[in-house]
Formats: sequence, C-alpha cells, structure tokens
Amino acid sequence: MTDFKYTRIDEAYKRIRSQVLRTPLVSSEYINNLIEAKVYFKLENLQWTGSFKLRGAINKISQLNLDQKQKGVVAYSSGNHAQAVAYASKINGMSAKIIMPENAPKIKIENTKKYGAEVILYNILNENREEIGNKIARDEDRILIKPYDDLDIIAGQGTSGKEIAEELLKLNILPDMYLCCCGGGGLIAGTSTYLKYSFPNIKCYSVEPDNFDDTKISLEENSIKPVTKKLTSICDALLARQPGDITFAINRKTLIKGLSVSDEEVKNTIIQLAENLKLVVEPGGAVAATALLNKKIETNNKTIVVMISGGNIDNKLFSKIVRES
Amino acid sequence: MTDFKYTRIDEAYKRIRSQVLRTPLVSSEYINNLIEAKVYFKLENLQWTGSFKLRGAINKISQLNLDQKQKGVVAYSSGNHAQAVAYASKINGMSAKIIMPENAPKIKIENTKKYGAEVILYNILNENREEIGNKIARDEDRILIKPYDDLDIIAGQGTSGKEIAEELLKLNILPDMYLCCCGGGGLIAGTSTYLKYSFPNIKCYSVEPDNFDDTKISLEENSIKPVTKKLTSICDALLARQPGDITFAINRKTLIKGLSVSDEEVKNTIIQLAENLKLVVEPGGAVAATALLNKKIETNNKTIVVMISGGNIDNKLFSKIVRES
Repeated sequence: MTDFKYTRIDEAYKRIRSQVLRTPLVSSEYINNLIEAKVYFKLENLQWTGSFKLRGAINKISQLNLDQKQKGVVAYSSGNHAQAVAYASKINGMSAKIIMPENAPKIKIENTKKYGAEVILYNILNENREEIGNKIARDEDRILIKPYDDLDIIAGQGTSGKEIAEELLKLNILPDMYLCCCGGGGLIAGTSTYLKYSFPNIKCYSVEPDNFDDTKISLEENSIKPVTKKLTSICDALLARQPGDITFAINRKTLIKGLSVSDEEVKNTIIQLAENLKLVVEPGGAVAATALLNKKIETNNKTIVVMISGGNIDNKLFSKIVRES
Repeated sequence: MTDFKYTRIDEAYKRIRSQVLRTPLVSSEYINNLIEAKVYFKLENLQWTGSFKLRGAINKISQLNLDQKQKGVVAYSSGNHAQAVAYASKINGMSAKIIMPENAPKIKIENTKKYGAEVILYNILNENREEIGNKIARDEDRILIKPYDDLDIIAGQGTSGKEIAEELLKLNILPDMYLCCCGGGGLIAGTSTYLKYSFPNIKCYSVEPDNFDDTKISLEENSIKPVTKKLTSICDALLARQPGDITFAINRKTLIKGLSVSDEEVKNTIIQLAENLKLVVEPGGAVAATALLNKKIETNNKTIVVMISGGNIDNKLFSKIVRES
C-alpha cells in the first residue's frame, strides 16, 4: 500500500540537517555489564525542543509554499509535537495555533507558548482534538500539521535513524535489534525504515505502555485494532489509542512484534537513566529503555539500539520519581 | 618549567580510546538564544563512571608494569577520581584502596565500592588524606595514583580536549573561548593545552567555587596561593585549596584568567541544565556553565566551549534542587 522508501529520509535530512541537533549515540559500560549486551542509546531527549518531534515538524513546515506560510499552521498534540511545530513555525516566521490537552505537562504547554504559538487547551474526556483542529484549519485556511500520519513527518523523524545508521557504520557495528517507543508510530516507522535499509537483518520492536499497546495488538492481528480500555498512563506522549493508517502500513512491514511496559517499570527506568546515564528522560521517552532493562525480550550478547525519544518532564514529577529511589 | 606538550595527549588517546566513551559535544538553540552566543557543551558527565576522571586513571594505570599491577594501587579523592581509579583497576584485574571523605556524596562512595575497591573513609577536619595515602603506599608497596598533579593524569584528562578539537575542526568551527571547572587543575591543564595547540587564539578560563578560587588568585599573583578561608561549597569535586605544582605550571601558560561562582548560582544552573539540556550534572560539573549563564565574562556573539565535567550527584540533593525550581 504505502510506498515509503529510505530515500525520502535522505531527502528530508538534506532539508533539515542545519536546523536540528545531530543527537549523540552513546553507550554505558554499566548498562552493558548489567544487561550482558552491547547497547547504544540514541539521545533524542537532547534534541532542540526536547524531543525528536522537531525533525518531522521542520521537514513538513519548511516545504510549505509562501502562501501557506503566510496563512500559518494548526496542530494538535499532547506536547512534544506542539513544541516542535511552535518552534519550527517561529524560525520560519509563521503563526501557529496548537491544540493541547488541559492536563498536558506544564513544561510542554509553557514551552509551546514560549516559542510564540497560540495554545488552545481542550478537555480530553469531552472534546475531540481532531475536530477542533480541522475546524480551525477550515475556518482560518491554515495547514494542519498532523503529529504522525503524514509521510513528510515520518520522513523527518526517520532522519534520527539515518544518524544512527551512519554512526554504527562508522564504528563498524552491526546491530541485532532496535527498540523504539510507539505512540502514533511516526518515529518508529521512519527510523525502522532507515535501519532496515542499512542493516537488513536488524529486528525492530515497538514499545508501548501496557494500557496503550494498540500497535502490539495490531501487529499480532495484522490489522489496525484500537485499545478501548478506559485507563491511563504516565507516558503522556504515547496515549494514541490506535496506530495511524500510514504509520501502520509501514510498521507492519518493518517491525517484528510489539512489546509493552508498566508505569512502575517506567519510573524505575527514569531513575536508572538519571543515576547511570545522567539523563533527564520523560516517561514516554523511557519505554524502550524500560523494555530493555526489564528483559521484555531476550537480549543476551546482542547489539541493541535503544531510542530515548524525549526529555520533557515536569520538574515536580521528575523530582518526585528520583526522590523515591 | 614543566614541558608538557599536546603530543603527550595524542599518545594517551591511543592508549585509552577503546576504554572510554567519546563523549558528545552538543549545542542548545535555547541556550544560544538566551546567551546570544554559540555554545558547545562537552558532556563528560556521560563518561563512564560519571566524570572525565576515567581518562586520566586509565592512562596512568594501563602504563603500570606487571609487578606494579600485582601490588595494586592506592588513591585519595573526593569521589570522581575514586570511582575512576576503582573502575580502571577493576578492568585491569588489580586491587585498589581508595581514601575518601566521610561526607562524600553517597553515590560516589557506593560506586567506588561497586567497582570492587576497598574504601577507607577519613574525616576532612582531623585527618590528612595525603598522609594516609602515602602511608598505605609505603606500607603495602602500592603505587599512589594522584588525582591531578601527575603528567599522565593530565595527559589522560587532556584527551577530552582532543575530542573537542576534532569535533570543532570537523564542523569548521573556530572557538573564541573555553570555560572549564578547576579543582586541582588537571582537566583544565590537559584540555587547555590541546585546545591552545588546535586553536592558538582561543581564550581559556578556569571556573571555581567562590570560596575555593585558589587558581584564580594564583593566576592573578602569578604564583601558587592557597585559600585559607574555612568555608565550604556544594561543589564537592572542587574543594582543592591550592593549585597543583605541575598543573599550575601548565595553567599559568594556557589560561587568561580565573572566574568564580556562588553555590546559589550553581544550583540554578543545575536546574537550567536539567530543564533545557535534559542533563543530570553535579555541582562541580556545572560551574563552567554557571559562569556562562551568569555572564561572569562577556560572551556576546562569541563561540564558546563549556565543559560539563561530571554528573555524580546524590538523588536526594538533585531532587531537592530541581523541586525548588
């Protein structure tokens, strides 16, 4: 169905490379010994705006024509895409309206405003963000910048996978496995496409919160299945209830299977990453590392790439989690 | 007096490169806009054992002969050199005894033990760590691994400067300034030597806690001056009361002048680095960034390299600092 090729990621990288951080790929002897494996962490929490989302937002927005740029954009997002669209709009001199949940982390709401966007808060129980977004797009003739189900967004996020591949090839390392968080599936669709191109034998796994394991289930059933449980998770960035049409069409081809982790396991991982990797990681950004540290899959003696996707966590929550260690 | 050349750092790098992390050099658009400068942070907090100290320890210990390795080593340290010597001894299959202050951060004491070293705690008010160290070295015929006043240690720490230079040259960037923490002065002696070699016009500045500004004063007076004030600082890694003989002989040639920062300013920087760079940084590791953020020197429109030297801070203290933001 969807014909998405790594070349699209190469093109995106030419477009965005001067406007994003080439994020580090680091290892930790402590973690390697603990896990008995060779692990490489890709640090998208160090990306400007605090998550990988900047890559897709810049790739999309920089391709708008002058007329579209003058009219501005609208986006809905739990927070990381919000900041990325706000920042990308700012550096392109554009107006942005962003629809965010009332209960999004403060740091995400504040930063989105700081980058100059107008923030519209909505209630996740009574209101539908897509409807609000589509209405604004129609009424104000603004382009809607979707958070994941868009080939330019997926190609932009995929540039992180291109950087991983380049680093590993430079070091002469062949990875066995790739673990990556999955909300709507844009990051993993893009990065797994590039990694499968560079390393055809790599096995790619999505990682989701236990109660939001829609990609895991959809992969098992080989068709899009939503989760219907009325539960929540501290992983505010990963609360999508079903895979995107486009992202799933890619992910069903690139992924081996889905994994999931509990909030309690995520909290312990946040502590581990602070203590041992000296990193501030948000809950959604820590799920792939959580799957690794909790042995959700056999990793002994393997070479594993683990995506750390974001670091936008409120100081209060971070402080509370670390204090309880 | 001391004839210390960058070539010694090149040789050290050949020795240690496979046993340390090539730490990232990253920028932050947020900080660049805030400071109106181009800033590159060298992340030695991500180094294995949580600080740059591993570089010097491995460079020294890997050069011991078989007889010396069998007898083992002894070291005194406030904590980062302790962990580094313990770790380097472990990977060389050697015994290590480490003398540490009773009130050192728990994380530093625990990690030193975790790497298999025997830890001997002393009281900083009544006891002298050099005396204890020298006695053990004599009695047990162990090599004393000094924390900074040793050319092999300085050359090892200098490899971080070599990595900085290589990255900047690759990016075609000429730095104007270099800000680096200073305790005994080993890291800044090594790194400033390499940076001055690579970029002859770079201006190098040491940064110390206000009450431990012995290098600043010694540079002003052009001879080694101790601080005598009976005060303390949260920067546990930077409490040296006077420059080393060897380190100062180097630093008086490579440094322009010394800067100093208050504990309160350091705490605010730790919060900034957590929020905006997503990094866990210990107080001593944050002083160079503190000097930058508090404009201790004119940095407008300059290209500046800032050393983040370590991240070994107790969870409780880190949590408390971040919570109060």
